[in-house]
Amino acid sequence: MSFVERLECPRCKNAYSAEVAHNLCYCGGPLLVRYDLERLKKAIKKKDLIGRRADLWRYREFLPLENEQNLITLGEGFTPNFSVPRLGQALGFKQLFIKDESFNPTGTFKARGAAVGVSKAKELGISSFAMPSAGNAAGAWSAYGAKAGIKAVVVMPEDAEELVKKECIVYGAKTYLVKGLISDAGKIIGRGIKTHGWFDASTLKEPYRIEGKKTLGLEIAEQFNWQLPDAILYPTGGGVGLIGIWKALKELQAIGWVDGPLPKMIAVQAEGCAPIVKAFNEGKTESEFFEGAKTLAGGIRVPKALGDFLVLKALYQSGGTAVSVTDEEIIAGVNQTARSEGLFICPEGGAAVAAAHKLLLAGFLKPEESVVILNTGTGLKYPGLVNVELPTLEKGGEI
Amino acid sequence: MSFVERLECPRCKNAYSAEVAHNLCYCGGPLLVRYDLERLKKAIKKKDLIGRRADLWRYREFLPLENEQNLITLGEGFTPNFSVPRLGQALGFKQLFIKDESFNPTGTFKARGAAVGVSKAKELGISSFAMPSAGNAAGAWSAYGAKAGIKAVVVMPEDAEELVKKECIVYGAKTYLVKGLISDAGKIIGRGIKTHGWFDASTLKEPYRIEGKKTLGLEIAEQFNWQLPDAILYPTGGGVGLIGIWKALKELQAIGWVDGPLPKMIAVQAEGCAPIVKAFNEGKTESEFFEGAKTLAGGIRVPKALGDFLVLKALYQSGGTAVSVTDEEIIAGVNQTARSEGLFICPEGGAAVAAAHKLLLAGFLKPEESVVILNTGTGLKYPGLVNVELPTLEKGGEI
Repeated sequence: MSFVERLECPRCKNAYSAEVAHNLCYCGGPLLVRYDLERLKKAIKKKDLIGRRADLWRYREFLPLENEQNLITLGEGFTPNFSVPRLGQALGFKQLFIKDESFNPTGTFKARGAAVGVSKAKELGISSFAMPSAGNAAGAWSAYGAKAGIKAVVVMPEDAEELVKKECIVYGAKTYLVKGLISDAGKIIGRGIKTHGWFDASTLKEPYRIEGKKTLGLEIAEQFNWQLPDAILYPTGGGVGLIGIWKALKELQAIGWVDGPLPKMIAVQAEGCAPIVKAFNEGKTESEFFEGAKTLAGGIRVPKALGDFLVLKALYQSGGTAVSVTDEEIIAGVNQTARSEGLFICPEGGAAVAAAHKLLLAGFLKPEESVVILNTGTGLKYPGLVNVELPTLEKGGEI
Repeated sequence: MSFVERLECPRCKNAYSAEVAHNLCYCGGPLLVRYDLERLKKAIKKKDLIGRRADLWRYREFLPLENEQNLITLGEGFTPNFSVPRLGQALGFKQLFIKDESFNPTGTFKARGAAVGVSKAKELGISSFAMPSAGNAAGAWSAYGAKAGIKAVVVMPEDAEELVKKECIVYGAKTYLVKGLISDAGKIIGRGIKTHGWFDASTLKEPYRIEGKKTLGLEIAEQFNWQLPDAILYPTGGGVGLIGIWKALKELQAIGWVDGPLPKMIAVQAEGCAPIVKAFNEGKTESEFFEGAKTLAGGIRVPKALGDFLVLKALYQSGGTAVSVTDEEIIAGVNQTARSEGLFICPEGGAAVAAAHKLLLAGFLKPEESVVILNTGTGLKYPGLVNVELPTLEKGGEI
């Protein structure tokens, strides 16, 4: 039994029942899960978390599952929040942290959304789902689909990482490529949904993925012992993680588990695809389609996000900002983190490292502030980041 | 303050001080860490583990570190022990588990040995270490070396996985390839040690890696609530994990935390490199160099392991066995596990899956026995396992 009250459109405030499967609001807005926070507050105390399972289901009261029998888990969440003093020193921070999502199944934070989304799909009796993806979401949903026995159909850009394509295949998903961007993949899915009757599991077109991502915010709060950090840097493609973290923090605030100012939420994008940064700089509440999107960080190569208005709202409300970095800065961020901290982060994480440095130089962040960099996945999925030219010795050779 | 009493050679029983760095015993045997188990038993109870950190350092009393300031962690250990009912049903088991080591930093169980080995190296004041590796150990030790600020030198076969080579590079290790096997890499390291004065961190040539691997056994015991499973299948290359698990179980038995028969320890190898299987079948206490070693599972392509006599001893003592599988069976095991359970395991793990089925058919394992398959790492590091041939759609395409 969950504490879910309804699904709600943040645009028009229309409400929908959570007992049947929904996609978008009739107005075109994404649906968010609303809980009975008064009842939730009475049902759980902070100390109840002690000794609970070390995955995101430790926060089950904050999640939409009704029946534990539908819970599909591959061990997602409760990832480490590393203190990274050597990297911090190099960048100029005294309290720098990397929330390291590479520890998730399939190696990225997409597992959070997939775990909750697929569990809820099972609960709602859905037998097949389809989605466009830059790559990692497809990998994650394919894995959870396999575990749940639900058929997965995924479409991704043809230049998606090879490893992600292989992942989808090994999990048995119906996998297609498109000569285009994730937005083109989305259109193909849109047509296929009508023809084949798959459930549309696209980002924000189903309401539960964001609840999985929300646990990032719950974990950050718990891992900081409910004394929130000053800023969170989030590499922003579709932006669901940022929306989710912000939703979590507001829910925690509502039940009185955290107080004081919430962290500044910072959206990090690549210079080659920075629609949110452009909108933020222009003080707008929505972004425009970013033409000619190009960056090596595939996860943030999203020219127009359905939830852009929610991302921007969180930036404005939190006193945060949006910042872009170059591909060269991204690669430097990855290398610097590996060599100083032994963490091989993904390019999107590298973007957030570079952005932290940039915002410190710009005076937006201060050396004494506690700053969390979200690394959304493992660098292992991006072999193109590292060029191998190694000395090769003969059998009898010497170093 | 640890409970370490001494280092001991299991061959000649010679003892060494744990306060200085050692490699092999003068007789050529590997050194094992011996603890004051009586004192340890008094210092910790099972219930003390509740609420402790969710990594292998939760077992600190069973580990050799003297001073927590030397602890180098990247979040290793306390990996999930998945119940895999659908795979179990397909193979014929009612209680099948996969202990999934892909959740470790660098994606493999090698992180356990590296975490404890590098922490102890730091404690002993070691400033550089060198090792041969099939690949994954090099990746792990490079990461921990980076985190510890200790210089790492690694040599691996030129046909090691590309991703692992890239991993070593990104972590800043001095990385070399050799036109040969891990045994050839070992000889190069052996010569380099003398020339350059690096600490020799080769498998079993330093005594602490095995203590890290030992935590696998502690975790299995805790995760089964101290009621041990009937059998553990371990893909066996150097065999340190198997030796470590067995050491852990004996230590737990000695302090009374587990009773009854210990699990049957089962060494799984590839048909193209099966020195332990051959020795076991011949009733021998040591293996012979396996000529022409060849298998796609690089982690178990070890033609002669320094610790073979300890592996064989554990097999005999536990009433276990040794079994080999073909490369085709390995690939089938990987695919079957991904499709039925959403877990993309490594080829070595696939070998253990195939072996479980084989031993059930042979009557050695029974359907009702609880069986643990050790998956030593993530399949993501082995892109060659999956062949991509995907349909590519035009922008306006349809499925």
